[in-house]
Amino acid sequence: MVDFMKRALELGWEALVAQEVPVGCVFTIDTKIVAESRNTVNETHNPTRHAEINCIDQVLDHCKANNIDYKEYFKNIVVYVTVEPCIMCAAALNNLHIKEVIYGCANDRFGGKTVLDVSKFYDHNYDVTGNVLADEAMALLKQFYKGANPNAPESKAKK
Amino acid sequence: MVDFMKRALELGWEALVAQEVPVGCVFTIDTKIVAESRNTVNETHNPTRHAEINCIDQVLDHCKANNIDYKEYFKNIVVYVTVEPCIMCAAALNNLHIKEVIYGCANDRFGGKTVLDVSKFYDHNYDVTGNVLADEAMALLKQFYKGANPNAPESKAKK
Repeated sequence: MVDFMKRALELGWEALVAQEVPVGCVFTIDTKIVAESRNTVNETHNPTRHAEINCIDQVLDHCKANNIDYKEYFKNIVVYVTVEPCIMCAAALNNLHIKEVIYGCANDRFGGKTVLDVSKFYDHNYDVTGNVLADEAMALLKQFYKGANPNAPESKAKK
Repeated sequence: MVDFMKRALELGWEALVAQEVPVGCVFTIDTKIVAESRNTVNETHNPTRHAEINCIDQVLDHCKANNIDYKEYFKNIVVYVTVEPCIMCAAALNNLHIKEVIYGCANDRFGGKTVLDVSKFYDHNYDVTGNVLADEAMALLKQFYKGANPNAPESKAKK
């Protein structure tokens, strides 16, 4: 578990270097990483390109290419993400019936669990565990907000 | 206003013919349609491809191609959508600081306003008006759920 979060943190560092809000994410099934990404909002000029959405699209591409039923596939996925998924991402993950989310630090403004529990509106809920290597995840965010985010100077602690 | 919703309903019909959950959407600025789409979840095998997300991507592509600041552009956009945006889409639209949403019928299960008011977690809120040609929008949904949705047989009134 910790190894997967460490990989997510590495991706968060990659985001920081690329001047993105530093959030990294890996999707796993059993002991294997099946998708990994980071926030690419500034790079793509697309505010919906959060790390989780990028991973979702990687899995969907994989399923399409290999003729796999994505609905069955997502049911086995455990998501490791350095910051709690925002409301948009939490809704998307609920919609996909993923198995579990393990996150680092909470998302105090837009958290899809701690700020607004999106899951209660969905029939199928995933398990959520927070506070896994939270200090490391928060350190990345702090590092970022010390510097400048060219595309979102007004947004603090925003994914 | 009604003409824009009529166009959204036409796109909803298109979705129905394509065996998608029938939701259509147009994005407008002043008197002009700047993006239009429909639900393409089944066609793309991607459960995040709601009509609004497709329109968002069209606008972002347009801004990129024409070197327009998308943040400024979205501020002027009024969204017409046949069914109230779901939690995921409402969060994305809030995140983009769009001007206004006008919808047809409410989304009783996943509505990002009526079921769960996502907007209160965002600094900048858009105006929302519902119940515009709601009967027509609801008739499309009823027509769909009378038939079969090959990819989501268990999901009722789900966008």
